[in-house]
This record gives sequence, C-alpha cells and structure tokens, in this order.
Amino acid sequence: MSFLPTNPDFETRVRESFAAQNLMATLRAEITHIAPGEVTIEMPFSDEFTQQNGFVHAGITTAIADSACGYAAFTLMPATASVLSVEFKVNLLSPALGERFIARAQVLKPGRTLTVCRGDVFAVKDGTEKLIMTMLATMIAKSL
Amino acid sequence: MSFLPTNPDFETRVRESFAAQNLMATLRAEITHIAPGEVTIEMPFSDEFTQQNGFVHAGITTAIADSACGYAAFTLMPATASVLSVEFKVNLLSPALGERFIARAQVLKPGRTLTVCRGDVFAVKDGTEKLIMTMLATMIAKSL
Amino acid sequence: MSFLPTNPDFETRVRESFAAQNLMATLRAEITHIAPGEVTIEMPFSDEFTQQNGFVHAGITTAIADSACGYAAFTLMPATASVLSVEFKVNLLSPALGERFIARAQVLKPGRTLTVCRGDVFAVKDGTEKLIMTMLATMIAKSL
Amino acid sequence: MSFLPTNPDFETRVRESFAAQNLMATLRAEITHIAPGEVTIEMPFSDEFTQQNGFVHAGITTAIADSACGYAAFTLMPATASVLSVEFKVNLLSPALGERFIARAQVLKPGRTLTVCRGDVFAVKDGTEKLIMTMLATMIAKSL
Repeated sequence: MSFLPTNPDFETRVRESFAAQNLMATLRAEITHIAPGEVTIEMPFSDEFTQQNGFVHAGITTAIADSACGYAAFTLMPATASVLSVEFKVNLLSPALGERFIARAQVLKPGRTLTVCRGDVFAVKDGTEKLIMTMLATMIAKSL
Repeated sequence: MSFLPTNPDFETRVRESFAAQNLMATLRAEITHIAPGEVTIEMPFSDEFTQQNGFVHAGITTAIADSACGYAAFTLMPATASVLSVEFKVNLLSPALGERFIARAQVLKPGRTLTVCRGDVFAVKDGTEKLIMTMLATMIAKSL
Repeated sequence: MSFLPTNPDFETRVRESFAAQNLMATLRAEITHIAPGEVTIEMPFSDEFTQQNGFVHAGITTAIADSACGYAAFTLMPATASVLSVEFKVNLLSPALGERFIARAQVLKPGRTLTVCRGDVFAVKDGTEKLIMTMLATMIAKSL
Repeated sequence: MSFLPTNPDFETRVRESFAAQNLMATLRAEITHIAPGEVTIEMPFSDEFTQQNGFVHAGITTAIADSACGYAAFTLMPATASVLSVEFKVNLLSPALGERFIARAQVLKPGRTLTVCRGDVFAVKDGTEKLIMTMLATMIAKSL
C-alpha cells in the first residue's frame, strides 16, 4: 500500500511529538524510519525493563509498537490534528530476548477520524531478526 | 467469582516472581493486594514514563495491567508452573493523568493451560479514582 | 454505572434498528432487555449454526454479542446518530453448548464519537447459565 | 513464510472438519484454497445475513475469518489433534458490501499448543476486491 500525506511536514511533526515522549528517551528509543503511513522505532536491550525471566517486559515492547503505530497514523493526518491511541491488541509470539528491538508499523486503513495500523516487533540477536510480537491498533485524530 | 488455589504458597510465589521483574522496580510499582484469582499493582506518576501530552504512556499502564493479570492467573496455577502472557487487548478510556495508577486484575476463567483475565487501570487524582484503561488478557501455564 | 440517555426515544430507535437486522431474524434472536447503556439479546440453539463439534459457531455468538454491544452504545447516542462497530475482541471461555444463548452488553465508557462496551455471552443448559464468551468492543456514532 | 505440515493428510482433515461445520453450509461458504499454514474461505452475499444497513453482519464475516484462521492453523497440527479458537480480535475497515466475500487466513506463528493466525476478509464488488476486515486470532491444538 502507498499513501499520500495531507501534511507535507509530516516528518517534522512526527519527530517533534516523538521528542516530547519522555518514555522514548527513558527507553533510549529512536525513530529509524518515517514514510507516509510507516514508522519504525528501535530500542536497545536494557536490564531495567525486564520481566521475571530476564526478557523485556511486554509492556515495553508494547510501548514502542504503540508509538510506532500512532506515528504511522500521524504521518497521514492533517496539520491541525493530534493523535491518540484508542485501543490495541497484542500477540506475544516469542520471548523478547535480544540486544535490540525494532517496532515496524504501517497503516492498514487511514480515515478522517480513525486509522487502523499493524505493528510488528522484532528482536535482534546475534545479527538475526525474529518476529516476537504483533499489534493491531486503532488510532484517532483529535483536533488541536 | 471465588477460586480455590491449588498451591497454598501462591502469595509467596507471586511476590518472588514480581520481585524478579526489574521493570516493576524501575516503575516503583508494588503489589498491594493478592488473593486467589486477584492481584492489584500500584505505581506513582513519574515524568520519565510520559507520552507527548504529559500523560503516562499506554505501554506503561499496559505493563502494570499485564503483570497484574499474569499474577492473578498465577495465584491459581500449580507449584510446578510458571506464567507467560499469550496476548492482551487494551481499550484506552481516558488520559492516564493522576498522581497514582492502580491496576486491578481478576481471573475470568481459570484453566489447566490457559487462563483468561480482566484488568482495569484507575488513575487517582486528588483522591478520586477514575477508570482509564481496561485489558482482556490470556495467560498460559508453562511447566518449569 | 448508570447513564443518562440523550434521546428519550432510545428504546424505539434500538428496536427499529434491530428489526432491520435480517441476521437477527435468521437467528431467531430477540431483544429481551433495553436500558440506558444496556442491551440483552437472546437466541435459541439451532443446528444450522454449528461448528464441527456441534457447538454454536463463534461467529454466531459473536454476532449477538456485537449487536448487543452496538445497541447498548446506541441507547446513549443522540437522535441524529447511527451506530457502527469499529472493532471487537472476543475470548471463548467454554464451548457454546446449550438450548439458549444470552448476550448481555453494557457500556463501559460512553463518548461523543466512540463508546466502549463489554458483552458477555451465557449458554443456558438445563436451566443453568454459564459464561461462554466475553467481548470488549468499540462502537462509533455516525451522523445520519 | 513457508511451513512444513506434520500430517501429510492435512487437506483431507481440513475438508472433513469444514464439511462438519453446519454454519458453513448455511452460509453457502466453501474452501477455495488449502496449503500448509493457509486457508481461504469464500461465501456469496445473501440478504439473510445482513445488519441494519443491508451490509453483511460483522458476526458473519467474523465466522468465515475465524474458520479460515482455525483451518490454517489445523493444516500444521498433528493427526492426533483437533483445533479450537481461543480468542480473536477484529477491526472492521469498510462496510461488508459486495456480491462475494473472501476470507484469507495464514499462520503467523505455529506452536505445539497455540498457533497465531491473521485473517483478512475482502468484499468483491463489480469484480474488484476490497479489504473490509482484518482478524488476529489464537488457535489451540487439543488432543483427540
């Protein structure tokens, strides 16, 4: 699928909003890809964010998937809109075990009010990517 | 609903596993209630975990809801099992704005392999609780 | 929770829309309860709607849960709105085995645009109700 | 993704189980594709299965998506297993308006106990396919 952004400054707006998410700095997460309808966020492993087995906690992989989905939707929204998550569903496919985690999100269906996105999270271990989580999310455009 | 735990030491097991979740310490989260089929986790607001509007990020409220659901399921599992999240779905009902956040989880349907739980997250602001998120989650018992 | 309807004719509007859902007639489903933020739909077992084990197919119990959630949301919408399902998530807790199925839905969070509902489906067997499915759903108000 | 079936007779087993789903006959649905980890189910429009606007009811498109996901998982299960739906989440992307509906499911992650699948439903109108629904589902293998 390819999408036409309604706001030519979509990349700047995504980067500004991302920079305002303190959690992303806390996670040392960064945006590594922005295109119309697509955003990728990556973060390194850190021992501070683990669950009882030493894997990254599902809430943290959810956080980067949710932000990636939200910003993928945001790339297609008008300059007068902000974006909020309505709901998401996550399936945990494999333990979040690796040196690095990559959340790749894309818009499935854009809309004036609601945008549906898919986000996949991959763990990178010894240079190999493995799909560990998939998210299906609904985002809403709010007038500023 | 009331449930009979199969492991009389369920409370100790939940507390030990919770203590091993580094993320919970990072969030300064604590367990404030454990009963058969029920767990409550609370955390204070902190500026480190916010999204772009200054609300707590959905990934963080998801983290305490997921842990609360997982441990609610774990209270009913045998001593030989560990617990992992299979999947969850979250609806964000109101902004995560408050001094404190409370995730209350309960088992809807226990099972030998799968346990279904509901988790509600409340924000406490000026002493008043408000429901801000609801989770529906599936947990799995793994043999140790 | 108790809700104040904005349209005093909410019951008539729900009944008219329900009557226009051909599927409900096909399933011999009927509305047995309407109140602000609440709708119950019941249907008898029928051999035409089963899956491979002779239980009612999950799509059918989903249908009555979805309609019940949609109309629970609709009771709180203004006279100028129609209702559509945005998304739902279903957990299947027990086989859909019984003489009768009851879907009870209630609004968790009403909103001008989006309303979040919960729906539980019970199977009635030998006069005893058993929870067999739970749904968490998002509904949208569309201007007519 | 490509998968290796553990049961060489997977196609026969899927067709036999599908034939036992009375709902599929009621919907005049048929399987049009079976491969390891993939199943497609198609059904014609029928006025008996509509919601209040004359579109096919979400419960019905859910039914063919759920069966397609279940049988996609079943293609990879051993000869001694049966398949049941654990849970699914559906996003409704566009009205179910068309002459024909196609549910295409594929396995995302197979497992000994749980298998995660994705299912997309397309409406065919005037010869053109349109994505109208997406499902993310968890299936379980039960010993016979």
